[in-house]
Amino acid sequence: MGSRTSDVQQRLSSGTTAPGFEPVKLQLDAYLLEDAAYSAQLAVYWKDKLVVDLVGGADLESTSVTGVFSSSKGVAGIVIAMLVQRGDLDLDAPVAAYWPEFEAQGKASITVRQLLSHRAGLLGVHPSFKRDEILNSEQAAARLASSHPQWLPGSTFGYHGLTIGIFMEELVRRITNRSLQAFYETEIRKPRDIDFYLGFPAAEEHRYRSLLPMKPTAIQQAAMDQGPSSNDSLASLTFNVLHSSATLLDGELSPNHREVRAAGPSAVGGIGSARGLAAVYAAATGNVGGPRLLDETTVSKFSQQQSWGHDRVLNMDMCFGVVFTKPHPRVEFGSYQAFGHDGAGGAIGFADPLYGTAFGYIPNPMQYPGGADPKAVRLSQIVRSCVQLLA
Amino acid sequence: MGSRTSDVQQRLSSGTTAPGFEPVKLQLDAYLLEDAAYSAQLAVYWKDKLVVDLVGGADLESTSVTGVFSSSKGVAGIVIAMLVQRGDLDLDAPVAAYWPEFEAQGKASITVRQLLSHRAGLLGVHPSFKRDEILNSEQAAARLASSHPQWLPGSTFGYHGLTIGIFMEELVRRITNRSLQAFYETEIRKPRDIDFYLGFPAAEEHRYRSLLPMKPTAIQQAAMDQGPSSNDSLASLTFNVLHSSATLLDGELSPNHREVRAAGPSAVGGIGSARGLAAVYAAATGNVGGPRLLDETTVSKFSQQQSWGHDRVLNMDMCFGVVFTKPHPRVEFGSYQAFGHDGAGGAIGFADPLYGTAFGYIPNPMQYPGGADPKAVRLSQIVRSCVQLLA
Amino acid sequence: MGSRTSDVQQRLSSGTTAPGFEPVKLQLDAYLLEDAAYSAQLAVYWKDKLVVDLVGGADLESTSVTGVFSSSKGVAGIVIAMLVQRGDLDLDAPVAAYWPEFEAQGKASITVRQLLSHRAGLLGVHPSFKRDEILNSEQAAARLASSHPQWLPGSTFGYHGLTIGIFMEELVRRITNRSLQAFYETEIRKPRDIDFYLGFPAAEEHRYRSLLPMKPTAIQQAAMDQGPSSNDSLASLTFNVLHSSATLLDGELSPNHREVRAAGPSAVGGIGSARGLAAVYAAATGNVGGPRLLDETTVSKFSQQQSWGHDRVLNMDMCFGVVFTKPHPRVEFGSYQAFGHDGAGGAIGFADPLYGTAFGYIPNPMQYPGGADPKAVRLSQIVRSCVQLLA
Repeated sequence: MGSRTSDVQQRLSSGTTAPGFEPVKLQLDAYLLEDAAYSAQLAVYWKDKLVVDLVGGADLESTSVTGVFSSSKGVAGIVIAMLVQRGDLDLDAPVAAYWPEFEAQGKASITVRQLLSHRAGLLGVHPSFKRDEILNSEQAAARLASSHPQWLPGSTFGYHGLTIGIFMEELVRRITNRSLQAFYETEIRKPRDIDFYLGFPAAEEHRYRSLLPMKPTAIQQAAMDQGPSSNDSLASLTFNVLHSSATLLDGELSPNHREVRAAGPSAVGGIGSARGLAAVYAAATGNVGGPRLLDETTVSKFSQQQSWGHDRVLNMDMCFGVVFTKPHPRVEFGSYQAFGHDGAGGAIGFADPLYGTAFGYIPNPMQYPGGADPKAVRLSQIVRSCVQLLA
Repeated sequence: MGSRTSDVQQRLSSGTTAPGFEPVKLQLDAYLLEDAAYSAQLAVYWKDKLVVDLVGGADLESTSVTGVFSSSKGVAGIVIAMLVQRGDLDLDAPVAAYWPEFEAQGKASITVRQLLSHRAGLLGVHPSFKRDEILNSEQAAARLASSHPQWLPGSTFGYHGLTIGIFMEELVRRITNRSLQAFYETEIRKPRDIDFYLGFPAAEEHRYRSLLPMKPTAIQQAAMDQGPSSNDSLASLTFNVLHSSATLLDGELSPNHREVRAAGPSAVGGIGSARGLAAVYAAATGNVGGPRLLDETTVSKFSQQQSWGHDRVLNMDMCFGVVFTKPHPRVEFGSYQAFGHDGAGGAIGFADPLYGTAFGYIPNPMQYPGGADPKAVRLSQIVRSCVQLLA
Repeated sequence: MGSRTSDVQQRLSSGTTAPGFEPVKLQLDAYLLEDAAYSAQLAVYWKDKLVVDLVGGADLESTSVTGVFSSSKGVAGIVIAMLVQRGDLDLDAPVAAYWPEFEAQGKASITVRQLLSHRAGLLGVHPSFKRDEILNSEQAAARLASSHPQWLPGSTFGYHGLTIGIFMEELVRRITNRSLQAFYETEIRKPRDIDFYLGFPAAEEHRYRSLLPMKPTAIQQAAMDQGPSSNDSLASLTFNVLHSSATLLDGELSPNHREVRAAGPSAVGGIGSARGLAAVYAAATGNVGGPRLLDETTVSKFSQQQSWGHDRVLNMDMCFGVVFTKPHPRVEFGSYQAFGHDGAGGAIGFADPLYGTAFGYIPNPMQYPGGADPKAVRLSQIVRSCVQLLA
């Protein structure tokens, strides 16, 4: 009996919850008890204070960092928002105003807004990007600049899962003469000591926990046993599957390669803790570790919905702002004012200005193939209930 | 036996049907016999003549009037169409041309067409409108003028359930220096003695029948018993649910408040009979009580589809013209030329130029949560069959 | 036993398959064995060579030709692409630049691209086209030029099943002073001796096999027994059902009328063999019977997706380039680079530049009501697998 109780105790989350946020821990603990193989970090800021900082399970500790795949895009999106706020980047200017080569192949009138809202139809290249091109976006950007859009630019939208990172990086390079990663490190991460990296330093490597692959369900396994489907769809082009992919390099999850972590590509290569992921959004929308990075006008611009409906690439409902993902009926992670980004496996980071919250969640192993872990969505709903009761 | 027959007789509709429209009465009677708690008024004009004028059930008489919620919007839409026809309002002009304050927060290029086709993304305000603001749209309009659109204007559409009324009223005020209600009363209702009001006079109050709430189904009741879902979605913003709502004021259906009836807000506050609702559309498209209000060119403009597909707010398929709702596969109330508006509870009024008909239907109690009562759709289909056989 | 073997033998396809394409014949034979009433022609070009040329079933021989309904539109689309390549037609110019009468009723800004991507909302006329107007598109075009779009041009898309043919023909007439049919005959068909006709010559009539109607399923039969639904929807307008229709004339499938075959209307009147249909696309994208008709830039323009999502007329998911249909999740007939056109009954022709293939398929009787026969889609997938193994 005693040892069973202690088994249960061991599987509960550890960390802190501010008064009023106890229900968040209860729900996370319920998930941990339900599945012994599940680990997760969860962090929430409210009114500029860290009110939830929890970790549980065998594969993550409080000091661990790991990969978050596309949740990296939201972090890079804060850099883009800062350039807009400073007046260095105009969302309604043609991309070619900053990047002259881009105008080839009928792309002269594509705006920055369209490019960064998954509307340009520049999903990938044929033949697909090689490993080096994923790590060095300058080369990849040059190939995209000379390519023809797969759809009439602006006419529809679909997740530019890999190329949106390349585009953000090229724009930052053209405008600031620095890499997006260097800009993030200097202007955002380092001054606030945020535990989320685009370009993970060797000195921190001892904290890296390998990201574990998702256990396929019986249906998924059956589909895989059937062999690969043909690799010629828009989604295949987008996810670059012909040669290597953004998610897998040489059969291993890409953030588990040291060279991916070191480069920190904006699309998929961010490394950090849930605390760090939440801190990025807390710093963007509040005074956390320094004066808030984005003023209210900028927040309104980036929280505004740009693309909504059936995603042409993913073939399911999505909602995007400029760069960021937005809540929608399928994934209600926040109020209509929320903006953030989820990633393959289930990590998610976001701010919700209506509630004054910032949220970071990282599971291990990967929990969900294509975006926010439903458990994260449920946890975010409990956070909102807690805030409503406190207000 | 005799008393049973007379029971049945009592539950049938009374009123008139012109030769050839008998099947309409048969269907309405079938609905009345099916549900002893159901009352309805039904009126149809064809070629400028009232060919169906029926009423049945305990909660409506021939002389009764009651609330029709959003069916009011279609009546206000006729006012807008008249301003367009007179050249006083240009659908493709920016809203700010008539209403300079509107251009704040990046709204300078939003057109009247976009604003009145549910495309502007100006769904509501935070904190939500108070009771007085719903009755006095001038104040509400000022708050909307200084707000930021929830989506990139024009990029999608979603039902502006409350604010479209505020916008119509503000435009009429700016252009005519009169209230929309006064314009409607003077130029449309009074000269034709139409039994449909935006601003219901005290002298007619004896004819008002309280609108009865819908009996929830078991599923709806179960959902309500679960408690409220979070009030932070675009739909919550739209329906102003945080403080009060367009449908309910202080827990009572809004047209049941005398002050709502007296003000007659365009979005939800129209009061009338089915005969009156049909007469508005008959007068708009034919010579009924005076020369037709809208010429064929204007009818084409307002019958033209502007927004179709998945509604971002309602999260279901909708089809809108400028102001008006259009038939679509989910609600086939008329031909491709039809235009009108339905309302919470199930009332609907529309014109169908292809058939030369105008249609008004009002049930009591409310029959259907979010638009045209399916019974009304079926009745409209029978009307079309009757007309085809007569033609 | 012997005679049973020979029965099976007789039902297999005859013709040729190049080494590596044997699986295509195996699948076609499986379909032929499954359904004794099924006949089909199948032809595939790869790298400018005819690698599959098969026919099976009692109702088509190798030398037969028959009707392909809307697959004709893709053949006419090659003519349009040639005009664009020559610089005689600008996709982004207003239609009225070539056809001044078109600007009536608020259509001045509709572009050629919108018109030919099913976005103009010019679905039909009321009263509907008469038989002569379907055969003489000049008259029909004049009626469309003076009509009002059913939706705000550009705001959505829906299959212009009949009128897109009329528009293509009028544009070719205005620009070249010749009929589209004459242009096709002189510049494409005759020099390459392609066995696909827009305007079928009397001298070839002995090869024509009547197109047999589809056997309705039990559900379809039940729907038909219920009697006609009302003919007043956008789809009814589009398919011109009030007087006659594009598919049926006087109760007979339209290509079975000699006068339809002789006129060869672009929307529905092409006549040919699968070999001929494949040859059109092979000649467009490769050196088959002469230098390739379309260079890579032109192919990119016409293979680019213009309209995707829920089709407003067909009420199902579709994907269109300029004129051409594109693969999409419901009908994956090729890679993201493929473009072609299917037709009522199930015929399909397309090119797939990613694989270097051109494909033609014609079944008899009609197999599928609204587009590509699922059997054709499966056969196309096998072709792609074969090419991947050969590459």
